[in-house]
Amino acid sequence: MSKTAITPTREQDYPQWYQEVVKAADLAEASDVRGCMIIKPQGYAIWENMQSNLDARFKALGHMNAYFPLLIPLSYMEQEAKHVEGFAKECAVVTHTRLEANDEGGLSPASPLEEPYIIRPTSETIIGKSFAKWIQSHRDLPLKLNQWANVMRWEMRTRIFLRTSEFLWQEGHTAHATAAEAQEETMQMLDVYAQFSEEMAAIPVIKGEKTPEERFPGAEHTYTIEAMMQDKKALQSGTSHFLGQGFSKSFGIEFADKEGKLQLAWTTSWGMTTRMIGGVIMVHSDDDGLICPPRLAPQHIVIIPIIRKAEETEAIMTYCETLATNLRGQNFHGAPLRVLLDTRDMNGGEKTWEHIKKGVPIRLEVGPRDMANNSVFMGRRDLGIKEKQGIAKDEFTEQAVTLLDEIQVNLYKRAKSFMQDNTQTITNLDKFQKLFAGDAAPGFVQCHCDESADYIKLIKPLKATARCILLDDTVTGTCIFTGKETTRQVIFAKAY
Amino acid sequence: MSKTAITPTREQDYPQWYQEVVKAADLAEASDVRGCMIIKPQGYAIWENMQSNLDARFKALGHMNAYFPLLIPLSYMEQEAKHVEGFAKECAVVTHTRLEANDEGGLSPASPLEEPYIIRPTSETIIGKSFAKWIQSHRDLPLKLNQWANVMRWEMRTRIFLRTSEFLWQEGHTAHATAAEAQEETMQMLDVYAQFSEEMAAIPVIKGEKTPEERFPGAEHTYTIEAMMQDKKALQSGTSHFLGQGFSKSFGIEFADKEGKLQLAWTTSWGMTTRMIGGVIMVHSDDDGLICPPRLAPQHIVIIPIIRKAEETEAIMTYCETLATNLRGQNFHGAPLRVLLDTRDMNGGEKTWEHIKKGVPIRLEVGPRDMANNSVFMGRRDLGIKEKQGIAKDEFTEQAVTLLDEIQVNLYKRAKSFMQDNTQTITNLDKFQKLFAGDAAPGFVQCHCDESADYIKLIKPLKATARCILLDDTVTGTCIFTGKETTRQVIFAKAY
Repeated sequence: MSKTAITPTREQDYPQWYQEVVKAADLAEASDVRGCMIIKPQGYAIWENMQSNLDARFKALGHMNAYFPLLIPLSYMEQEAKHVEGFAKECAVVTHTRLEANDEGGLSPASPLEEPYIIRPTSETIIGKSFAKWIQSHRDLPLKLNQWANVMRWEMRTRIFLRTSEFLWQEGHTAHATAAEAQEETMQMLDVYAQFSEEMAAIPVIKGEKTPEERFPGAEHTYTIEAMMQDKKALQSGTSHFLGQGFSKSFGIEFADKEGKLQLAWTTSWGMTTRMIGGVIMVHSDDDGLICPPRLAPQHIVIIPIIRKAEETEAIMTYCETLATNLRGQNFHGAPLRVLLDTRDMNGGEKTWEHIKKGVPIRLEVGPRDMANNSVFMGRRDLGIKEKQGIAKDEFTEQAVTLLDEIQVNLYKRAKSFMQDNTQTITNLDKFQKLFAGDAAPGFVQCHCDESADYIKLIKPLKATARCILLDDTVTGTCIFTGKETTRQVIFAKAY
Repeated sequence: MSKTAITPTREQDYPQWYQEVVKAADLAEASDVRGCMIIKPQGYAIWENMQSNLDARFKALGHMNAYFPLLIPLSYMEQEAKHVEGFAKECAVVTHTRLEANDEGGLSPASPLEEPYIIRPTSETIIGKSFAKWIQSHRDLPLKLNQWANVMRWEMRTRIFLRTSEFLWQEGHTAHATAAEAQEETMQMLDVYAQFSEEMAAIPVIKGEKTPEERFPGAEHTYTIEAMMQDKKALQSGTSHFLGQGFSKSFGIEFADKEGKLQLAWTTSWGMTTRMIGGVIMVHSDDDGLICPPRLAPQHIVIIPIIRKAEETEAIMTYCETLATNLRGQNFHGAPLRVLLDTRDMNGGEKTWEHIKKGVPIRLEVGPRDMANNSVFMGRRDLGIKEKQGIAKDEFTEQAVTLLDEIQVNLYKRAKSFMQDNTQTITNLDKFQKLFAGDAAPGFVQCHCDESADYIKLIKPLKATARCILLDDTVTGTCIFTGKETTRQVIFAKAY
């Protein structure tokens, strides 16, 4: 067996492998603040690439960015019963506004607030309050806002990127004159998430509706995109909520329609988070570290000069610099290629391994022989570590963008095959129980499952979860739990 | 006297005029959360334009973005005595992690934390802790990070954009092997802020060092850019701190130098905030509302169709749409022109006034006569409201970018003249007292002022503040407070 850069391997211990990849790729680390992570430059660069692409998609559809306060008055939470039920158990509460020296020489909270605040776990309440003020007439609709922000949910069991007490996200909030328009917006944003996931993160997803038990607190319908990790567990990767008129009732979001009659608005909300970075890691990476899809990669190409004698230095560096400059002149999806020329005073092999672990899509090694041949030695991160090849320098410069696109597509196709190979439709409960009996996740298990919640007590001990109801409800079949006829099909899986 | 869109005017009541401009331009509003604002889409778009430009400047100098936790353990604050002294009086303290129903049917904080957290007022402590972990060798230096984040300081008297409990900012944090390098970084970032302010916000500034009394808590030197508002008060618009080895001592930021000897690192930090939006408003706007410098404007050009008869609609709309498309094809400082075609079903005059108040740099009105002449009717926001002119449509399309640059330069020159006209050098205390005696601010008052802090008790009742010590210390003169010879010159002003 060949040695791998990451120990343990995926097969040996998947959860621990994940932590080690995060560390080896220098993406993020735990902090002293319970459940909160520090996102390091390599991880944050992936988030910035996600942000700028998502932001452009939102704006192209007429959404505008705004910013609302971090703190939410308790009284706002009290106004939406279901919502508070969902978030009260896990929220950071601000109760004081000053520190004073205490007898032990330390600091203690002082100046208590009359009404405490919570740090936003999500902003439906505070944005709803503003919508009520801003929306008067049908002319004010639709109102389509988005906010890039940090939010906080005091999670008990945290895992870097996947579930942290503080995380970064965007939250879209819109208000519409009719239920149909709000529903259309909800589905449109689900599509945006699915397209973003597939095109940018190279992660295939299944779109569906969450079961009533899994809905966002206060929503009438919650839609989700679900991705499959390499351990065959599901990761909920983005959600879009049809909120109906619930928040409008609670916060008084009313408008005068064309006839001058007061109506409650229909609202939506939708969000995607830094959790997506965890998905990228778990879908694509291998036992040598991160594999980052080119469109999200902090660096597209790294150039590693291999210098063995001091007298070669100048010529090789000039060769590499010219190459870097020519590559940076190329355009990859609207921006210049991100090329790192790694000039650190370090062993070339060490450097190569570092960039393998960091998931740089293309590595170029340039030694005296490559220079003599006017070529480079290229390694693609999506292929085996040893599958390197010499290629003429000019040919590479010409093909770099095409190669990156090829890598992007290759990663997507690989993930898609994996998901398809591990998705099965079943027609009886016995099979369901067998599939979920072991420790290993069985992938996506699709079956007919009617509206009754009978299945819940059955699936819980198996650690199976209902991921989503398929959007296509044209096929009739027998519910494996109740034996009744239904067109409702549900995907079950073990999940993060 | 002609009627103005904003009441009161600047002359009548400058502070109230400011609030009214913020409202009329739809930039932001107060929230129910004490001292926290809601940044509306028009205001947030200005911030986004600031962000993307500053971010590019930081990255061009080799800084990388990262993200650190919102919450800071009390024990971190306790480690830096001066720092805690500066921030303990105004910080939001998180003490609980859950809400539970109380007897009055409301919610109360539950699950108290063993160690409370504060919401970051700034991140030197938490970033210092990470630096100590990440920096081991001289090879790890310099370490140059930046964070875009929200911060919270529980201010007693707040004013929208200028002083709010929560605000958005960037905070740069760097560590270096030598004092000289850290000092160079500190001054480099001060220059970046000055250039940003002058080039993007069209706001001339004076660079200088803060007096010891006005230093950032924990810094050895604090440098500032100071701008002059139209009421002749100063606005501190960006600061850059040389932190020396203080935070390195407190948090253990040590590195092995080339000889293997342990050394304390030298650190810096520097920040610019949403306060800058307040500066833009106060420097450029007039009694008809916001005047936004083109490079920061949410929209560069608005096209207003003037339709009086229904049968004209189609032709005028087609004419306007073609114009908009052609303009959007033009490049203004690296991005397409932002052109709004205002098709709302509203009176044309009303629309025009709305865009005047919103500060759009160029307004184009297009009625049937303009269309017949193949022209547009143009108003520049930096000129008088009535100074409109007809211009051939194609000529305008060709010149749009040049015109916007002209407006940008015009705003800068106007502000620069104003600052120069209201800056004076004085040589005696009597003059100083006369200048600061009245309610009106005297502008920037420059004089020799030695290191002793004698002046402080004298200037306080006059509401005069020391804005900065000039960087140029080549001119000897007599301190107006102590009568001693000194090369130290200080700018005094009333300030925000």
